[in-house]
Amino acid sequence: MGLSTENSFLQQLFDHGLLIPSSVPGVYGRSGIFENIVLGLEEAITRLGRDNKTEVMRFPPVITRATTEQSGYLQSFPHLLGAVHAFTGNHREHRVMLEEVEAQQDWGHHFTATDVVMTPAACYPVYASAANTTLPEGGRLVDVSSYCFRHEPSTDPARMQSFRMREFVRIANPESVQQWRDQWTTRGLDFLLSLGLPAVQAPANDPFFGPGGRFLAASQQEQELKFELLAPVSTEEPTTAIMSLNYHQDHFGKDFSIHTADGQVAHTACTGFGLERITLGLLRAHGLDVAAWPAEVSGKLWQ
Amino acid sequence: MGLSTENSFLQQLFDHGLLIPSSVPGVYGRSGIFENIVLGLEEAITRLGRDNKTEVMRFPPVITRATTEQSGYLQSFPHLLGAVHAFTGNHREHRVMLEEVEAQQDWGHHFTATDVVMTPAACYPVYASAANTTLPEGGRLVDVSSYCFRHEPSTDPARMQSFRMREFVRIANPESVQQWRDQWTTRGLDFLLSLGLPAVQAPANDPFFGPGGRFLAASQQEQELKFELLAPVSTEEPTTAIMSLNYHQDHFGKDFSIHTADGQVAHTACTGFGLERITLGLLRAHGLDVAAWPAEVSGKLWQ
Repeated sequence: MGLSTENSFLQQLFDHGLLIPSSVPGVYGRSGIFENIVLGLEEAITRLGRDNKTEVMRFPPVITRATTEQSGYLQSFPHLLGAVHAFTGNHREHRVMLEEVEAQQDWGHHFTATDVVMTPAACYPVYASAANTTLPEGGRLVDVSSYCFRHEPSTDPARMQSFRMREFVRIANPESVQQWRDQWTTRGLDFLLSLGLPAVQAPANDPFFGPGGRFLAASQQEQELKFELLAPVSTEEPTTAIMSLNYHQDHFGKDFSIHTADGQVAHTACTGFGLERITLGLLRAHGLDVAAWPAEVSGKLWQ
Repeated sequence: MGLSTENSFLQQLFDHGLLIPSSVPGVYGRSGIFENIVLGLEEAITRLGRDNKTEVMRFPPVITRATTEQSGYLQSFPHLLGAVHAFTGNHREHRVMLEEVEAQQDWGHHFTATDVVMTPAACYPVYASAANTTLPEGGRLVDVSSYCFRHEPSTDPARMQSFRMREFVRIANPESVQQWRDQWTTRGLDFLLSLGLPAVQAPANDPFFGPGGRFLAASQQEQELKFELLAPVSTEEPTTAIMSLNYHQDHFGKDFSIHTADGQVAHTACTGFGLERITLGLLRAHGLDVAAWPAEVSGKLWQ
């Protein structure tokens, strides 16, 4: 393959018509072939993680501003958030704005905050929809997916600004949640290996903002709250997180006031699949000619 | 059914677990059952409109700011656009922002424009990707889809702020484009009728902004550039556009400098399917219990 650097990999994806370039790094169209891999992956993930009690939820790429405030995202990751702003001026202000557009000046200052922001991770709207509720006996398991946005322009094809995240979310008492998260570590790794991805597990932390961020990251690692499954995507080494396993303890249960049937604050955990990243990992592992992929991989994706 | 007003329809969709409410009007989660209808619809649309020359493109819910400037969207529909803004301050500014969040003040002013805006209609990135090119003989046909955003908060379930639009886009010489658009008027109506939707065709115009908007709308109607296929969604009357057929003449060909093989400015047309609106129309026509839908409708969606 000779895919040595992240840039040449991106260029090859463009050249083979798998991704469609735009003038902004990290914002790409997907071809029918790329999407067919994503579709096969989605179905394989369904077979892997869904049981007859799983609730299926799909959310648009925006969540309410209130959810962002309530979840602590603004405290921890303000630098990654995309907020949706709108123009609410009259036709006079409109004329001024158009003159600025014409003069290639910044016209963003004519836009003010709306009630929504870009969804930063697929599971946030799940907690918001469960706010102020008591869980059924045994807790809940949700299969959720959405386009997510993170403001981090990059030419690394694995670091898109707009990408899809599929997740399973467990909301229950602490023991059930921990047990579920532990099960997924093996299950997730086996899944990736079965697709021919040379994946490895590694302790991880979220990219917390500011001077306090280093402490939060260290604490998250020390408590083993986050694991990632890494595979070769950006480079030929397994350095890119294509799945993550997160135990939030009572963080979201407290923020959104979710309680178990016996009155405890609920604990939560989630297993996230980076759909574009896994797809890119498959393309790097098995080549850009999808018709020539090994039969055992195709068979797992397109049954 | 007795679904008399738009609000009671929305409430029934929540009560049946088909949509998941949020605190913002027009921003809803979708249940597995709702998504299964959308999926069946997507496949039926593929069978209806795709041939062996069709290019398939899928785009994320954001496009570049440059595309918005170039396409004239800011001139015509500034009031509907969602622009993505981000926080690029240091930890001192972050502290000030968090104090404002805490005090329930507006914190949006800490965010400034990024290079992307929310996709307002699925076909814009297609024109951007074809910019400065010459078409192959016979022109191009593109099957495109994405989440779209329009800033128009409403409790009408048919007027979501974040929704999916599937489109076929024809880019070619004027004669080919007009012929293609005319074919779709019958084909689209037949498709909707075959799904048991009492659809009707009507001349239409886009919601142009400002004092000049009335003139542009009248001119668009007079030249028969836009038709909509209406069905009962918001009310029991066929007043909601669930498909639209648009002939843009050389508007996008000029803006994005797209030329035909023989050197003319390319013309474009598109056929748009409002995936949530058609789904809601089906739910209104055939009832909220999808398992009890007529066999000829289910058979068309889930082959």
